[in-house]
Formats: sequence, structure tokens, C-alpha cells
Amino acid sequence: MSAPEHERLARAALSMIVEPGDLRFLDDVAANGPIGSIERVAGRPEANPDALPDAQSRMDRADPAAELERVAALGIRFVVPGDEEWPAQLGDLAGVEAVQERGGVPIGLWVAGPLRLCDLEASVAVVGSRDSTLYGEQVASDITAGLGLAGHATVSGAAIGIDYAAHRGAIAVDAPTVAVLACGADRDYPPRHADLLRHLRDEGAVVSEVPLGGAPHRIRFLARNRIIAALTRGTVVVEAAARSGALNTLNWSQRLNRMPMGVPGPVTSVASLGVHHHLRSGGASLVTSAADVLELVGRIGEHLTEIPRGEERPRDRLSVRDQQILDAVPVYQGADPASIARVAGAGLTSVEEALASLAEAGLVERDGAGWRLTEPARA
Amino acid sequence: MSAPEHERLARAALSMIVEPGDLRFLDDVAANGPIGSIERVAGRPEANPDALPDAQSRMDRADPAAELERVAALGIRFVVPGDEEWPAQLGDLAGVEAVQERGGVPIGLWVAGPLRLCDLEASVAVVGSRDSTLYGEQVASDITAGLGLAGHATVSGAAIGIDYAAHRGAIAVDAPTVAVLACGADRDYPPRHADLLRHLRDEGAVVSEVPLGGAPHRIRFLARNRIIAALTRGTVVVEAAARSGALNTLNWSQRLNRMPMGVPGPVTSVASLGVHHHLRSGGASLVTSAADVLELVGRIGEHLTEIPRGEERPRDRLSVRDQQILDAVPVYQGADPASIARVAGAGLTSVEEALASLAEAGLVERDGAGWRLTEPARA
Repeated sequence: MSAPEHERLARAALSMIVEPGDLRFLDDVAANGPIGSIERVAGRPEANPDALPDAQSRMDRADPAAELERVAALGIRFVVPGDEEWPAQLGDLAGVEAVQERGGVPIGLWVAGPLRLCDLEASVAVVGSRDSTLYGEQVASDITAGLGLAGHATVSGAAIGIDYAAHRGAIAVDAPTVAVLACGADRDYPPRHADLLRHLRDEGAVVSEVPLGGAPHRIRFLARNRIIAALTRGTVVVEAAARSGALNTLNWSQRLNRMPMGVPGPVTSVASLGVHHHLRSGGASLVTSAADVLELVGRIGEHLTEIPRGEERPRDRLSVRDQQILDAVPVYQGADPASIARVAGAGLTSVEEALASLAEAGLVERDGAGWRLTEPARA
Repeated sequence: MSAPEHERLARAALSMIVEPGDLRFLDDVAANGPIGSIERVAGRPEANPDALPDAQSRMDRADPAAELERVAALGIRFVVPGDEEWPAQLGDLAGVEAVQERGGVPIGLWVAGPLRLCDLEASVAVVGSRDSTLYGEQVASDITAGLGLAGHATVSGAAIGIDYAAHRGAIAVDAPTVAVLACGADRDYPPRHADLLRHLRDEGAVVSEVPLGGAPHRIRFLARNRIIAALTRGTVVVEAAARSGALNTLNWSQRLNRMPMGVPGPVTSVASLGVHHHLRSGGASLVTSAADVLELVGRIGEHLTEIPRGEERPRDRLSVRDQQILDAVPVYQGADPASIARVAGAGLTSVEEALASLAEAGLVERDGAGWRLTEPARA
């Protein structure tokens, strides 16, 4: 299944003209389809008078047919609604209010890499601060490795810090991972992640709403974050200072009825400040591991975290009454049942019964006329 | 206001006979008053046949009148319902189900130290693991110091680890702090905290439901925890492994409609495992500082935490449109407005308007025929 070619062409033209997430255009595309929309931009300015001058600033240089040919030669594809590969979950963006005037279903996505976007249905976003700590990076890698082993792809933003660690954890277990960029999918941004991005283009996917060559303008990160949130079942923020863009992704996740999650850290760490704030305000669920994430994003009953219980000790199996009497048995020097009864605050008959059963459990032993703890019970 | 002396005597007798939190007796005391209850124990076994043998094991040695005289000489008082000093909030224990057969309003409290229990209405419990980390101890001290400066007393259990740090933080700012023990209020338990307990007996208070000399039986810690939770507006658990007794205090706090709170830590720290579990299950609110605690336990509007925002930068005051155009202005080599318009995806007229206002804000400057960022804007 594939979108009609003239629709793809119209979407490519719009993608080259329109800023990512600019709702003035995206709403029009959603309402009138890409062909109606491009005609409106090109030939009927009166239909969208505010937006038109913006579109015209790029229109004269946009040659979508030539561009689609050029990118295909580079092994890059332009995936649009109607294509089998189109990730249907992005449709949820249609109903969600804009943040900083950015929102809406993307016109199309430029994709480099073999991973098919329609296979991201069970994916999880793991994102976080560029100013990360070793702690945060380790936890991010552990979580994405665990998610990968459980069959969940990792989506992140290829940024320095937590994003890098998130991709790396997935790669370490040969699990699929995808970067969504705020610049063209052909650009190595940040430059120091050229190797990571090359690997993702070879083995996973690098995705962008921005046409090839587009620069990573700051405002484009806001639009990019909505795609990370919308592609995935939930967003885990590992570390985020008060202003971190990762919190923007978390907000999108929440507003899209995905699962917003946050990993806590030391309260003394600035890198965890923003995460703790979101956990406090109920804007995110606390997760500590891949198992916790799986419990929240898995299908019902698919993954269940064990409640941490610690090691069970022999005492734990005793009744409260037996514990009460055991507490009153001396450690070394035996005491008679009447004395134990007084210390325990228990009747003599019940103390004698309890001592017999505690002896059977190997917790108390006779010491002359009295009773004391056994060696294992002393520990 | 003071309870009648024959009631105090009856309660002292019951306190010396009955195990802390043993509901078979405490319910009877609540229903029939201490005098009816002691008569029942002493003279009418048929009324409470199960409990009687337990009571009788200690009754022959209990001389409450002599004991009250003896403890008074030691500067210790036995505070009971009806006394002005009795902390009314302990009454909330009446309606709450038992845990491990322990619960109920204490028969009375043995108190050493000048602090009056009725002054703990706004107090906060800060408790945690004995196997604490330096991180946890630092955070516990910081929180209780902050609470103390804001006028809230700290209640804890004088245990090694977090409890010790909690008392110490309050003491550091000369704030009131109280230890509730699982042994007699005259005992130095744990032994290495003899100095702390001496300080508390001199300046704060050491409190116990157990008569003087009573040993810290393990089962008594469960009963003790309900008093810590009930005395306070909320319980903060700073570190707790999966089995920590501090979680028991947290549960009591929750069931008493107090505010259960937990401080997160590194997810890699075993010492935070139990806290994280409770935060995950919704059994506690996440707090990171005294300010967070105050927001939850303060009277409405009394304390409000500021939302962490990070530093505001000049960009933050710009409209989305101006940010979009600023993103397209080159850093060093000036570009003409038409080129900036194309890169920004914005109409020429609006770009020219935006450049004028960005210049006024000191973010862009002319460079020959074109425009570029100013030095502050490059940062």
C-alpha cells in the first residue's frame, strides 16, 4: 500500500515550504488534503492570507519532483500518510492543542535507514538532558537495553548526553532504535555523533520532518519532540534540569495519552530537578528500571514487575504471638518459661506451647532447665 | 488540666502489664475506661478470657503506685488521656485497623524531657533505613533543619542511620525534636546513641509506650511506628530498603490520613528501593526538600514551593515568530532579509519587522547590507 504519487509530490512540496509543526498549514492539509492545500498556497492566496507570504519565501526554490529523485538516489525515502509504512499513531497529533504554536500531524517524514516506521507501534521514547551525569547515562542505557531485550524499540533524539546513552543501550543488545532529528535526516547533528547517526542510518532509522539539509533551528526542537512522543507508547525522561527540552517531550506524551515516565535521581543533583518536579506534580510515573517501564507500556498482563520484598527470614513465617515470645527468649543464658512469660507478657501455657514449636523450627533450644536462642536464631 | 489520679494509676498498671499495641486490651480500655479494664484483668477473668493469662504473667510484679513515684524521682512523667499534655491526634489511632495485631490508642506514654507532647501538633516524622548512605543522611538532616527553621518539630526513632541524621538536623538549628522508642524511655538504645538520647532528654523528649527498663523487642517496633505516624502531620521516609521498618511507619501514616512522603534517590541504590516502590505504587508523595514537605503538611497557603524554572534567557521573552526568525539569522557573516526569510520560512515583510524589533532587543545587528547575531545573542 502506497500513497498516490501526486499526493506524495504535493506533500514533498509542502514539507519543503512549511516550517515543521506550523499549524496554519498543517490544519489546512488535514482539512483539505495536500493537493488542495498546495493549490491554495500556490494559486489562491485569499484562502490562507496570513500564511501565504511565509510559504512564498521558499516556494520559488522548491522543486519537489527533483528533490524526491535526489533523495531516493541517496537511499532516503519520504514517508507520507497513505503509505503502508506510515506510523498510524501519529494521527493522534490531530486532536492535540499546540505548544508554542507547534503541533499537528506531520505532512510527511524523511527517513534514512532500513527500519520501517510502522514497526514502532510498541516503541518507547527515552530522552533526557544534554547536561547528564554518568548515573543518568548508565540508567538510560540499562533501560533501553532491557526494553530492547523485551522487544521494544527505542526512539530518542540523538542528542549529547541521555539521548546518546539511550541509543547506545539499544544498540548494545542489537535492538532497533530510531533517532528523530530537528534538522534534515542527512545531517550529522550534533557533529560528534556522526558515528552514531551513520550506524542508525545503516541499521535503524534517522527520521525528520525537516527536508534534507535543513538546519537544527531551536524552534524546530519543539516540533520534533511531538513526533518522538507521538511515535511511542510512552516517554521516559531520565535526567532533565528545570528547562530541559526533554520535559517538553514528556508534556507531549501526557497530552497524547501516552505514558509519561521519569527516572528519579539524587535530590542533590540539578540534572534530576526537572524530573522530580514532574513526578511531584503527577505529570509522570516514577520508573526505576526497564521492568517498571514494561509494566506501564506493555499490553495488560504482558509484563509485571515483582514487588521488591527482600530476603525472607525464618522469623517471617512465625505468628505474631510466636514472635512476641521469641523476642523474650535470652540469647545465651537460658531462662525458665515463667520468666520468659513475664518478659513477653504472655500466659505460661501459651509460652510453653510456643517454645515447643519454636524448638521444632530450630530457633530455640534447652539450656539446662531453661531455654535460649539457637545459633541460627541469634544471627 | 490533668487526668484523675486513680485513672493514671490504672493506666500505669495496664501499661506495665500489657504489650504495646495489643488490641485485645487497648480496645477494652477504649470501651470501658482504664479502671473498668484493670478491674476486669485483676478480678473478672471471664470478661476477657483469652487475654487474661497474658496479663497475669506480669501482674504480680506490677506496683504502679511505686513505679509512678520512682519515675517521677527520675524526672520522667507518665502522660495519659485527660492530661493537658496528651497529644489529641493519637486519638485517630482508634479507628484504624491493626497491622500484625498491633494498633490502638496507647494506654499512656512515658516521657523524659522538657518538650510537651501537646506541642507536636505540627510535627513531621522523618525516618528511614539503618543501612543508610551518606546521601540519605545528608538529605534527612537538610530536611529536618529546614522544617525546624519553619517551626515544625521533628519526630523520629533514634535509630542508627537516617533517624540519627533526622534528629541531628533539627538539633543543628535548635529546633524541637522527639524520639519515640521501642524500649523504655530510660534506656540508651541503640547504645551508641547514648549522647543523642541524653541530649533529647535534656532539650527535647524521649517517649515510649513501654514502661521504664523495657527491652527493645522486635515486635515492639511495629507498635512504636504507629505512634510516630500518629503524632505527626506526615511521615517522610528518606531511605528504605525493601524490608525497612520505615515503610511500616509510612503505611501507618497513610492509613491515619497523614501525609506519607518519600525522598527519591539513585535507582541504583538498594537503600532507596523501598521508597521508590512506595512512590511508584502511589503510597507516598515524592519530596525533595523541606520546602516540598512544607507544601504538603503546611496549612493551606502557609508554604508554597516555587516551581523550578531555571534562568530566564533573552530568547524566552520573544514571540514564537521572532524566535523562528532569530534562528535563521547567521552567527557571523551577515545575510540579507530575503535570504533570512527563506531560511526561516517567513514572509519578507514580517522578517523586516522582526529584524527591527530583534535589533532593538540587542539580539541582531547590521553587517554591511545584511544582518547577523550580536555577541550576546551568540552565547
